Amino acid sequence: MNTPRSINPNALRHLVVAWLAEDIGRGDVTTTSVVAARQSGRARIEARASCIVAGIEAAAACFEVVSEGTLEFKAAVADGGRVEAGDVIARIKGPLAPILTAERTALNLLARLCGVATETARYVGAIEGTDARIVDTRKTTPGLRALQKHAVAVGGGSNHRFGLDDGVLIKDNHVMAAGGVAEAVNRARTSAPHGLRIEVEVTTLEELDQAVDAGADAVLLDNMTPETVAEAASRSGGRALLEVSGGINLDTVRSYAVRGVDLISVGALTHSAPAIDLALELEHVARDGTGE
Amino acid sequence: MNTPRSINPNALRHLVVAWLAEDIGRGDVTTTSVVAARQSGRARIEARASCIVAGIEAAAACFEVVSEGTLEFKAAVADGGRVEAGDVIARIKGPLAPILTAERTALNLLARLCGVATETARYVGAIEGTDARIVDTRKTTPGLRALQKHAVAVGGGSNHRFGLDDGVLIKDNHVMAAGGVAEAVNRARTSAPHGLRIEVEVTTLEELDQAVDAGADAVLLDNMTPETVAEAASRSGGRALLEVSGGINLDTVRSYAVRGVDLISVGALTHSAPAIDLALELEHVARDGTGE
Amino acid sequence: MNTPRSINPNALRHLVVAWLAEDIGRGDVTTTSVVAARQSGRARIEARASCIVAGIEAAAACFEVVSEGTLEFKAAVADGGRVEAGDVIARIKGPLAPILTAERTALNLLARLCGVATETARYVGAIEGTDARIVDTRKTTPGLRALQKHAVAVGGGSNHRFGLDDGVLIKDNHVMAAGGVAEAVNRARTSAPHGLRIEVEVTTLEELDQAVDAGADAVLLDNMTPETVAEAASRSGGRALLEVSGGINLDTVRSYAVRGVDLISVGALTHSAPAIDLALELEHVARDGTGE
Amino acid sequence: MNTPRSINPNALRHLVVAWLAEDIGRGDVTTTSVVAARQSGRARIEARASCIVAGIEAAAACFEVVSEGTLEFKAAVADGGRVEAGDVIARIKGPLAPILTAERTALNLLARLCGVATETARYVGAIEGTDARIVDTRKTTPGLRALQKHAVAVGGGSNHRFGLDDGVLIKDNHVMAAGGVAEAVNRARTSAPHGLRIEVEVTTLEELDQAVDAGADAVLLDNMTPETVAEAASRSGGRALLEVSGGINLDTVRSYAVRGVDLISVGALTHSAPAIDLALELEHVARDGTGE
Amino acid sequence: MNTPRSINPNALRHLVVAWLAEDIGRGDVTTTSVVAARQSGRARIEARASCIVAGIEAAAACFEVVSEGTLEFKAAVADGGRVEAGDVIARIKGPLAPILTAERTALNLLARLCGVATETARYVGAIEGTDARIVDTRKTTPGLRALQKHAVAVGGGSNHRFGLDDGVLIKDNHVMAAGGVAEAVNRARTSAPHGLRIEVEVTTLEELDQAVDAGADAVLLDNMTPETVAEAASRSGGRALLEVSGGINLDTVRSYAVRGVDLISVGALTHSAPAIDLALELEHVARDGTGE
Amino acid sequence: MNTPRSINPNALRHLVVAWLAEDIGRGDVTTTSVVAARQSGRARIEARASCIVAGIEAAAACFEVVSEGTLEFKAAVADGGRVEAGDVIARIKGPLAPILTAERTALNLLARLCGVATETARYVGAIEGTDARIVDTRKTTPGLRALQKHAVAVGGGSNHRFGLDDGVLIKDNHVMAAGGVAEAVNRARTSAPHGLRIEVEVTTLEELDQAVDAGADAVLLDNMTPETVAEAASRSGGRALLEVSGGINLDTVRSYAVRGVDLISVGALTHSAPAIDLALELEHVARDGTGE
Repeated sequence: MNTPRSINPNALRHLVVAWLAEDIGRGDVTTTSVVAARQSGRARIEARASCIVAGIEAAAACFEVVSEGTLEFKAAVADGGRVEAGDVIARIKGPLAPILTAERTALNLLARLCGVATETARYVGAIEGTDARIVDTRKTTPGLRALQKHAVAVGGGSNHRFGLDDGVLIKDNHVMAAGGVAEAVNRARTSAPHGLRIEVEVTTLEELDQAVDAGADAVLLDNMTPETVAEAASRSGGRALLEVSGGINLDTVRSYAVRGVDLISVGALTHSAPAIDLALELEHVARDGTGE
Repeated sequence: MNTPRSINPNALRHLVVAWLAEDIGRGDVTTTSVVAARQSGRARIEARASCIVAGIEAAAACFEVVSEGTLEFKAAVADGGRVEAGDVIARIKGPLAPILTAERTALNLLARLCGVATETARYVGAIEGTDARIVDTRKTTPGLRALQKHAVAVGGGSNHRFGLDDGVLIKDNHVMAAGGVAEAVNRARTSAPHGLRIEVEVTTLEELDQAVDAGADAVLLDNMTPETVAEAASRSGGRALLEVSGGINLDTVRSYAVRGVDLISVGALTHSAPAIDLALELEHVARDGTGE
Repeated sequence: MNTPRSINPNALRHLVVAWLAEDIGRGDVTTTSVVAARQSGRARIEARASCIVAGIEAAAACFEVVSEGTLEFKAAVADGGRVEAGDVIARIKGPLAPILTAERTALNLLARLCGVATETARYVGAIEGTDARIVDTRKTTPGLRALQKHAVAVGGGSNHRFGLDDGVLIKDNHVMAAGGVAEAVNRARTSAPHGLRIEVEVTTLEELDQAVDAGADAVLLDNMTPETVAEAASRSGGRALLEVSGGINLDTVRSYAVRGVDLISVGALTHSAPAIDLALELEHVARDGTGE
Repeated sequence: MNTPRSINPNALRHLVVAWLAEDIGRGDVTTTSVVAARQSGRARIEARASCIVAGIEAAAACFEVVSEGTLEFKAAVADGGRVEAGDVIARIKGPLAPILTAERTALNLLARLCGVATETARYVGAIEGTDARIVDTRKTTPGLRALQKHAVAVGGGSNHRFGLDDGVLIKDNHVMAAGGVAEAVNRARTSAPHGLRIEVEVTTLEELDQAVDAGADAVLLDNMTPETVAEAASRSGGRALLEVSGGINLDTVRSYAVRGVDLISVGALTHSAPAIDLALELEHVARDGTGE
Repeated sequence: MNTPRSINPNALRHLVVAWLAEDIGRGDVTTTSVVAARQSGRARIEARASCIVAGIEAAAACFEVVSEGTLEFKAAVADGGRVEAGDVIARIKGPLAPILTAERTALNLLARLCGVATETARYVGAIEGTDARIVDTRKTTPGLRALQKHAVAVGGGSNHRFGLDDGVLIKDNHVMAAGGVAEAVNRARTSAPHGLRIEVEVTTLEELDQAVDAGADAVLLDNMTPETVAEAASRSGGRALLEVSGGINLDTVRSYAVRGVDLISVGALTHSAPAIDLALELEHVARDGTGE
Repeated sequence: MNTPRSINPNALRHLVVAWLAEDIGRGDVTTTSVVAARQSGRARIEARASCIVAGIEAAAACFEVVSEGTLEFKAAVADGGRVEAGDVIARIKGPLAPILTAERTALNLLARLCGVATETARYVGAIEGTDARIVDTRKTTPGLRALQKHAVAVGGGSNHRFGLDDGVLIKDNHVMAAGGVAEAVNRARTSAPHGLRIEVEVTTLEELDQAVDAGADAVLLDNMTPETVAEAASRSGGRALLEVSGGINLDTVRSYAVRGVDLISVGALTHSAPAIDLALELEHVARDGTGE
């Protein structure tokens, strides 16, 4: 598992401002009409299902931005912690109106990120004790990549490249364009910055041989059976990192974690992890601004 | 079902530029290294599962932006159409590099939006023949609300409010802040712009009575059994629009579509619809810029 | 009168930064040349005519942004208060240079917003004791809508919709497009989100009948005489909200506030309210940074 | 009169996009519901009062942006032309929906800019035959400065500085900070870029002498009577440009245009010019996309 | 020398955020991997060559933005101070990771700005005792103009216009377009705002006569020998400001500073000043967050 | 040499718009005053010194943006071509005003980028025939990195990492933080994404051994003599890529290109390359808009 890259707070705040604007538009007309301006309150965010928590910083930023820093947000559990149904994830205290205005955006983020971390932890657990690592893919939700990759790391997985510029991954369409695995690898070795490893996707053992012979640093074995993967691992003999991918699910993942496999990438971590059911419960409302 | 609000093309383009930047960063180093600058190609986007298509405009914008308009994108089916596994959704032709660079972002969007439309269509189908309509909620993915609401409409559902500013929906926390259903409704009637209806969430039949007596235009019946919902409908006697919500799934939805229920809102349309499996298949590559 | 929707401070600051940039450009060359960097001062903003104050937050933001928070801005009167010529509206104390640099933008905003609030208060006063409310329109100055609508509320008026997305108002051109009042109302009832009321503009009593029969929630009576308005009110019998509009001025407004009229909309509140004469007077300058 | 500085089209478009977003928000729900997507139409913008036209480019940009270039906008008169009530200012043809969606923002801009140009022309006419020129001030509406200054030039006036960075104007507060007119002028002469003239505001003839002796290039005579202005002009004997300002109106402006006065600045051109009454009249609607 | 115009802190921060984003992208993967999150440290920025310091505020902003204000940055010398090789320019203390992440961007800015100030000081020194001033040009690095002009002022030079809008400078191509020096000057006198001086570039003494006779306020003598410049100065007799430009270097600059020459402009100050060699030296690392 | 990564045209245009705004501000007051609006012209950009051309796209974008596409820009030579003093680099034809307004920004960019490409070509030439490649560093001008790295590639050099996120380079400060070369390399191998190579800076042969033994993929030999570099190359025996860096200049670079050295990085390519002298010469002006 890799160290979660810290989320750039300037970039996070910029995104949160945009996401809040999407929901709030010209103002929360219900809260403005129904809640008194000086009313204060206390609330908790509570899990309604067991999960690994991720996204605390993003949720906190929602309340901070809407309230201009007048709300006190206290996480009861840090990113990576496990909670059960009924457990408190965070407590919020201060002016009531911004609690209600920020609620939906904060929960929308938190529920999805907890979902990613929790799903990742399931896959990581399934291969425990092997030498392989679970990694994510670029099949992320547009706009949420940094947060989703953070959630994967929090859940115990490792991050594949963050975009098209920080890793060379030659896929089937690139191979077709170049006219073959060896030619594609050679082009990349000549042209790509020297700080990037060259990884290439192969679908047969013959292509694996070509890739390794051409000097690929890593090979992605696409849509192979566990048996073929095992043979591939034996054949490459450690000359390249081996990544396995393609239609792997919780039932089959362990069968792919054979000796010699370094990485198992799972798109479903970020494109299909179900959101976790969370709720913001108001615990107390008061007429003044103290939250008491 | 309501008319899908057309997506603001300026806003869509602005989002697509940001989403592409998230993936491409400082450049697609693999494609730059492996694909010749003048190489052209033809590709198709193909469904690998049955679905209702949504998001064609967003996908097209990805290829248009990356290629600066040099790619030809032809939809084989319009938003709202149904395709089966193996069917072609769109064809793309022109310079090869931008096809490969835009691929992932376009598919990430399209797969999620087809998922929303398809899930919506299932719920709409489940209550066919009743007077109720399926509506979405604000439980959307941050950044994707307009597109997801469009996908709901494309799938046959109706859109609830788009944000906190274009509808008054008094929820349990607001009721608690105001000190009761009647007081909350009265405040909203006095303070909110006259163009907005007043809707209030209730959890008991007593609260329903209070809401209707206070002049609510619509009442959201939260987490009631189908039987209680039926009694509520009979009790309100058409004096307010009735919306049903809370833990409704495909198995139970029809039991809630009783006479007198106008709307059934389903958060899962946008927070849990599984992404549809799609692929971009390269059909042909050439050395010149014609795509032939 | 409705509760003034609080101005989003993030959005306000964003606008203020842009407005200051419009005036300051690459720097206040006069102040840089003539005022010593460490010089401090005290100033007051003073009314030169009787008015209702509006825009204190916007003015304060100008001084806050230019001085990066080093100026102390104290309002002597809150939004909604009345001042007479010679009265102090606010006092500013701290470094002298940012006071002079922010002055013009702050006064440009404040003078216009006080103008809107003051004009609104005149109309509100003119119909005092009737059941009608004064409402604004979308005839606002581009870029200033939220602030102008806030000033209307501060002046005792109510806000009509804030934009094209938070209310349905079918105008003459829409009626012409749809082929009639009834058809237009029917289309809107079917297609628009259920949280929005349906309002339609009519110019004759026949159209009023069609509108009410088709189920319009509100009807805008355009350019009718007070007598026709009275007949319309009697005819609709409370089945729809009635709004009166079109060429109404301070002399005629009371004659339109007949029984049964709910709203009187006045474009002139935001497109023709004269700016209030205000001035920033420097009271003291010192050589150090204390303002004393 | 100076040559109207051409409006930067990129900057104008950027502003127009923001102004349209302010009005349209998440979509024009009325037009979407009531107007058929393929319906086309023809409309005209018509003056309802005599005026000098200004703002054609801004209005055209509104229709161009909303329709993504599918509307044909033809000005019937160029900026600077005079029209009478009932005259056509522009004609628009093409898809109906964007005509209706862009209408309000376009008219809001055009009505205000025609107002500025028309008011300017009145002042320019009032001093016809004298050597003085009418100039604007920085008392513009935040966000509209470039357009309002353009409208002043179109109306026959000249532009004073565009902001705090393209001219040195030492005002009373600066004089107080520097400790005197002569000291303030000397500081500016030493410190300001050599491409900028030094102008200083004076309120007495003694200050005028100090200013001229200190080498001011221009002097602003603030709140003087026409007689004092005449004496000032004689006293300065052409050694500095003379600008007159302060409470000048249409009735008094000619009395200030005495020999030796170069410029008369009028804040009311941009802070109090009444908006011109304009309307968009739909002339024809059709079911297809041709506008015929 | 003119007073350095203070750098707009909002604008500076906006630029710094963009420049940091250019370097950091999705995160500093080395520091994240190698440095412990709670580790603190102390570092100094040290000159490796003699120079005039400029850009302290910009460098400080880099550390402030990356660390979100948790780093303490103390300048050891202010802008305009001279340091020798080995001298400390600033000290930074606090969390270690942001020190390392901000280092390169901060040094890239500081090294270039110190370079500009140092080069300017050389030219200023070379004409010491004469009446002429050294001024910069618009040959600045795109994006860095305000900072580079600040560095010129810090180095003892004066600033020419900041852009195309705050000064009239008629160059050879404008003269060709207008059909002659006199015609070009006349057009500018009629059309340009009265707050701007009219400067015109000439290449012969005949053109100088035409310029002065047409009323130019300043004349730029382009590519003349010192002898011709002296004759030009004598000929114009103080009727216009004289600026000398064109291929002037440190060896020749004093020969151009003859009596009557007001300004000598040097493009090389901003397009060719070599960067100063600077380094960030880590002095101490600790395991906790105190920097001790 | 690596393939120049194509410059993202959306990003380039965004930057060019900002750079033009920096120079043009509220408008080119000289050109507006002096050049007739309908006047057209022809101009050429000409080299005044021998150089390798780079930046054609950036220069073209300046003219394209200012003229809104009405100017015709024809490059006479592509990026990477060599020109001599007097050679034409590009020709521009169309409306005269935008040629003059865009001139300075276009030349400022082009001159600096040609400078980088030309300097790079000198270094590349100096090691011709050896196995080493010249690479750039992160010592680029803030805001210009992508363009400068493009210019390096155009000049025959290779690009090192583009930022802190697309390569792991453990520098002396990181080593100090981790407590040693081996520990730092181990941490990075565990934590960094698998697509990135691990490079570490060493200053002694002992550290080189530690680095190679710890599994570093590349080692940067900092500030060593050519002799020590040769020994290092022999010692590492191809087990890691070797990069040499530190105070290398044109005179010494070849002595470092010994057998076994893969890369020589030179900060001066981007921080000290002198700008190339270029000029825009107006060839013809006409009164109409044809350019003839």
